[in-house]
Amino acid sequence: MKEKIKVGVLGATGAVGQKFVQLLAKHPWFELAEVAASERSVGKTYGEATRWFQNTPLPEHIGRLPMKPCRAALDCRIVFSGLDAAVAGEVEAEFAAAGYAVFSNARNHRLADDVPLVIPELNADHLTLIERQRSKRGGSGFIVTNSNCSTMFLAMALGPLHQAFGVEKVFVVTMQAISGAGYPGVASLDILGNVIPFISGEEEKIEIETRKILGRLTGDRIELADFAVSAQTNRVPVEDGHTECVSLKLKKPASIAAIKTCLQNFRGLPQKLELPSAPPQPILVLDELDRPQPKRDVMAANGMATLVGRIRPCPILDFRFVILGHNTIRGAAGASILNAELLVAQKKI
Amino acid sequence: MKEKIKVGVLGATGAVGQKFVQLLAKHPWFELAEVAASERSVGKTYGEATRWFQNTPLPEHIGRLPMKPCRAALDCRIVFSGLDAAVAGEVEAEFAAAGYAVFSNARNHRLADDVPLVIPELNADHLTLIERQRSKRGGSGFIVTNSNCSTMFLAMALGPLHQAFGVEKVFVVTMQAISGAGYPGVASLDILGNVIPFISGEEEKIEIETRKILGRLTGDRIELADFAVSAQTNRVPVEDGHTECVSLKLKKPASIAAIKTCLQNFRGLPQKLELPSAPPQPILVLDELDRPQPKRDVMAANGMATLVGRIRPCPILDFRFVILGHNTIRGAAGASILNAELLVAQKKI
Amino acid sequence: MKEKIKVGVLGATGAVGQKFVQLLAKHPWFELAEVAASERSVGKTYGEATRWFQNTPLPEHIGRLPMKPCRAALDCRIVFSGLDAAVAGEVEAEFAAAGYAVFSNARNHRLADDVPLVIPELNADHLTLIERQRSKRGGSGFIVTNSNCSTMFLAMALGPLHQAFGVEKVFVVTMQAISGAGYPGVASLDILGNVIPFISGEEEKIEIETRKILGRLTGDRIELADFAVSAQTNRVPVEDGHTECVSLKLKKPASIAAIKTCLQNFRGLPQKLELPSAPPQPILVLDELDRPQPKRDVMAANGMATLVGRIRPCPILDFRFVILGHNTIRGAAGASILNAELLVAQKKI
Amino acid sequence: MKEKIKVGVLGATGAVGQKFVQLLAKHPWFELAEVAASERSVGKTYGEATRWFQNTPLPEHIGRLPMKPCRAALDCRIVFSGLDAAVAGEVEAEFAAAGYAVFSNARNHRLADDVPLVIPELNADHLTLIERQRSKRGGSGFIVTNSNCSTMFLAMALGPLHQAFGVEKVFVVTMQAISGAGYPGVASLDILGNVIPFISGEEEKIEIETRKILGRLTGDRIELADFAVSAQTNRVPVEDGHTECVSLKLKKPASIAAIKTCLQNFRGLPQKLELPSAPPQPILVLDELDRPQPKRDVMAANGMATLVGRIRPCPILDFRFVILGHNTIRGAAGASILNAELLVAQKKI
Repeated sequence: MKEKIKVGVLGATGAVGQKFVQLLAKHPWFELAEVAASERSVGKTYGEATRWFQNTPLPEHIGRLPMKPCRAALDCRIVFSGLDAAVAGEVEAEFAAAGYAVFSNARNHRLADDVPLVIPELNADHLTLIERQRSKRGGSGFIVTNSNCSTMFLAMALGPLHQAFGVEKVFVVTMQAISGAGYPGVASLDILGNVIPFISGEEEKIEIETRKILGRLTGDRIELADFAVSAQTNRVPVEDGHTECVSLKLKKPASIAAIKTCLQNFRGLPQKLELPSAPPQPILVLDELDRPQPKRDVMAANGMATLVGRIRPCPILDFRFVILGHNTIRGAAGASILNAELLVAQKKI
Repeated sequence: MKEKIKVGVLGATGAVGQKFVQLLAKHPWFELAEVAASERSVGKTYGEATRWFQNTPLPEHIGRLPMKPCRAALDCRIVFSGLDAAVAGEVEAEFAAAGYAVFSNARNHRLADDVPLVIPELNADHLTLIERQRSKRGGSGFIVTNSNCSTMFLAMALGPLHQAFGVEKVFVVTMQAISGAGYPGVASLDILGNVIPFISGEEEKIEIETRKILGRLTGDRIELADFAVSAQTNRVPVEDGHTECVSLKLKKPASIAAIKTCLQNFRGLPQKLELPSAPPQPILVLDELDRPQPKRDVMAANGMATLVGRIRPCPILDFRFVILGHNTIRGAAGASILNAELLVAQKKI
Repeated sequence: MKEKIKVGVLGATGAVGQKFVQLLAKHPWFELAEVAASERSVGKTYGEATRWFQNTPLPEHIGRLPMKPCRAALDCRIVFSGLDAAVAGEVEAEFAAAGYAVFSNARNHRLADDVPLVIPELNADHLTLIERQRSKRGGSGFIVTNSNCSTMFLAMALGPLHQAFGVEKVFVVTMQAISGAGYPGVASLDILGNVIPFISGEEEKIEIETRKILGRLTGDRIELADFAVSAQTNRVPVEDGHTECVSLKLKKPASIAAIKTCLQNFRGLPQKLELPSAPPQPILVLDELDRPQPKRDVMAANGMATLVGRIRPCPILDFRFVILGHNTIRGAAGASILNAELLVAQKKI
Repeated sequence: MKEKIKVGVLGATGAVGQKFVQLLAKHPWFELAEVAASERSVGKTYGEATRWFQNTPLPEHIGRLPMKPCRAALDCRIVFSGLDAAVAGEVEAEFAAAGYAVFSNARNHRLADDVPLVIPELNADHLTLIERQRSKRGGSGFIVTNSNCSTMFLAMALGPLHQAFGVEKVFVVTMQAISGAGYPGVASLDILGNVIPFISGEEEKIEIETRKILGRLTGDRIELADFAVSAQTNRVPVEDGHTECVSLKLKKPASIAAIKTCLQNFRGLPQKLELPSAPPQPILVLDELDRPQPKRDVMAANGMATLVGRIRPCPILDFRFVILGHNTIRGAAGASILNAELLVAQKKI
């Protein structure tokens, strides 16, 4: 790639926004040219406006970028949205209408009929909804969304199994990291030494988004996958990494060995195209009795892998296993960037 | 009660042993007269032999008790066993053979045909196994066990529902406190900011013990309850309190309101007899969206309550809810003591 | 006391406010009659307006109290202020002007010439400033303040030593609990597994307040004690309890044994008067090598004790020791209540 | 360097040993050829014998290395010792006697007259003690030690100031990470949500080792630096990174600006020689009000930097500041490796 493509980040000062900035700062294809946030940041540099709390230093040249308002007048073709759901809906639509390629991490448009909800390893074909979106909404821009963070790892683990054996029922209980709640997010008085057995709206998202992602594209619409998901979500005092305990029933019989092979050997379009952010092996299967663990495994493949461990029979359904993934990388900013990379590689941007 | 009954604690220096000591120190019926542990403690006082880490001070008169070996020569009629499973089997059998009433928190004898595994609110009738035990093993002593800590709260919540509606299937995922692993137990490097999705032997215990407790006494044996349990267990950085996410299917239809009423109104023999350690209401139903939480609710009814919250429909089975209980009180030492109180109240000791 | 004295809490929904409510709910002399907070709470009950996060349940009758605005029209004679410093100054002055006895936990008036900054064990004589305050400001009400939370334990430990031997220099480094920052306070992303070596304004407060409390009343003013304090403050992931490492130089020679005796034997006016919230022994000296520890010792004397441990020589100054106290009880709400109890006992209210 | 130098690690399965293995696995000069530990590991591979808990995967070829006993029969010229102090003294002496260059992280030999205690940026000249050691003890091998982890960062920050202005008095209070206690080390029940104000032997080490490192080599012996150090040490629930609050008095007057410049501009021999593990700038001065923080800053310069922040006046002495460093990298294994690199660069090995 001769020249880097200019990109912008909406909501750049927030938790997901910062992760976008961190990942884009060293991206081989994209140049972070614009950072935008609410009006009260405008007039400051990014360094002044941001309470940077990533574990790598803020690159100096990015710290000097001037904050822009979230209006469709940024000097770039692609915008990544880390906006809060309270404002994301309208702002993202405005950017799309103005011709920008919008990669959104917000929930607002995920379930719209004409908006692709994409994990490139699993349902890259859903990106054809972009055409429907353009014809319905007009304009040359578009919105592509990635899933809720917990959904990401569940869908990733179910995807290959659904294709090979058909998923029939899924129970999932999550133990989610505090970074998933943004910043300042969860009060330390609420979570230190505690479990909070509730995350607003999260269970509903997992139960529906998984079915859209693994749904079938027929014509210009998505049929939800025909399996049922029951999700229970918890917040735990972990910094990064959502752990999920899954029990599932498949339509066709499968051995434990077959499940392992199916997950381990799975590769998708990002791997074939060798996209810069693609993990070489999207799903890592661990054999240790007590893994995956967020503290030890969350940065596998630079935070872009989905880890699966403890694959074993379920006394009621067919199988049980434990899933782990990095909620703000593969589960948020990294997922958006991978979506953008795919469209760039396919010359659709 | 005119005079207190002398009791002893086996494994008194360990984590469960200390909890026994703490609870017995102020018990209205029992007098902690003997503390026993491994040979290397013998010759010291309890205060010298113990790295006391409870959050109330060790009473001075107990600190002065001389450590005894775990041999059946203690000056008391009742012994509470907080012994490690590595030695509990043999030692407890020796005490029972020698005529002691042994209340054990160890797993060794729980599943034996002639050993009652009892939660007094639920299956006090199983205590008639004591007769079978005596006739089979000889001697005037006996062993009564209480369940694994996670099983306790699950069985407690399922008990009234099983009686009223019949339980058919149960999925449970636990998030268990570090105090459940004893002392020193879990290394801080392993659990600080982490989740460990594995606890050795725990899932098997939950899956079988629940069915024995809720099983039916027919003649002199227990028929396991005929429902299936699928358990997944996790260790989380919480000090006290096991949280459990449950999905269940009942045999008869029930409304959410009926479930709540059934749980809230449930009372058992310990409540009727007003046993000293009995929680006035064994199951507390919480209506707050984000409760129960270990840090906030674990000491309800002095750590003897089982808390149930978030009762709601399950998209696959019938209902889902979240359970919480204090793993070293109701889930261990307090449960043993309640068992002993019941037998004393029934004049069986 | 025949009839309880009606009291109110200003800022009742906040962290310190809730602690006031919790402690007053069972107070033998005071009846919590009024709860006040910002305008947006008015119209709700206390239960509706408050995200209660104490570890004991909110008493039902208090949950039903109607929220009042923080205006000097409450039906009580005494108000306790847990107000934020942003508003405390003006509101408290208004209540005092209107005749209320105001016991404030806020920093605003602490250093005013005519406002007593009181720890009843140490400088109850400073309460005579009330007269000066009344004559200067008019009105029959007054403001009495208690110290910053970290100052409390330092002043308490230094007080008896200053009286007996004269304090000359003090170095103190604190490790402060998150509950000291209010609610929501410290973000979990900032403090989980971390130390923050800065608390805004805290070092200055410790360095000056300690000297005012241990200062001498001459005529109607306080001369600051003539020793120097150097404070460094840190936030650590502990829920309740500030730990402080102290090195100090005394004016007169003293042995370790003399220091211990001096601290242990110290009693003040609250102990003589047997005030309801007074710890029987205000300073507990621990001999264990590794104590005091917040998790294990913070609730000593219901959170009203100051604990001192590891008293040992300092290679540079005279002595070193470690101090611990409960920052929201003895260090905040409990201190205010003790001040009020003293004035009631002295018939000054 | 054409060919890598074979090195071995003693105590390779422990916490410091694992850090040696992790750092050596990718070292440009050294090839990890031998791993040794206690007899019970012999016969296993390193992968089998080790409960690996680093946050990067154990390289496969290292996992296959056979465990050797800690006897002086390893196929390498250099050994790094992560042995426990209980055995380090004798084993390290045996290896030195047999001709190995021993780089020890244990405390046993640090204070011996003929053993260099070296931080290469500060006192590389102390390495001439090797000659004295050889002539006294015989043999061609030798022992070089690095300091206790907390001492490392204190000495590093004091070194340039001592040279420029002369240090007269130092008060230091540490807040130390759990990884400093090895594995399993601190029990989670002891440290979760707690501070332990005591670390056995640590205060004495800091008070004496700092003075040896900054001492003067005269002839073939070290005169301790003539300043006094008072250290108080605490364990806090942080994974990696020791934070230290320092107050100090200098012999010559210095401005804050001069202090900053002195620290920031400091470079030592490792920087001049561009040793592979040398941080480009050994001391990083932070200007943010609330830094350094272990979670955010500990990996600066791959864990080899010493961070200094909050430089400000002290009301009693001259200056105060906060220090941070990575206790198992710069404070342990990385320090040993840097010592070895220096001797290799100087052709002394």
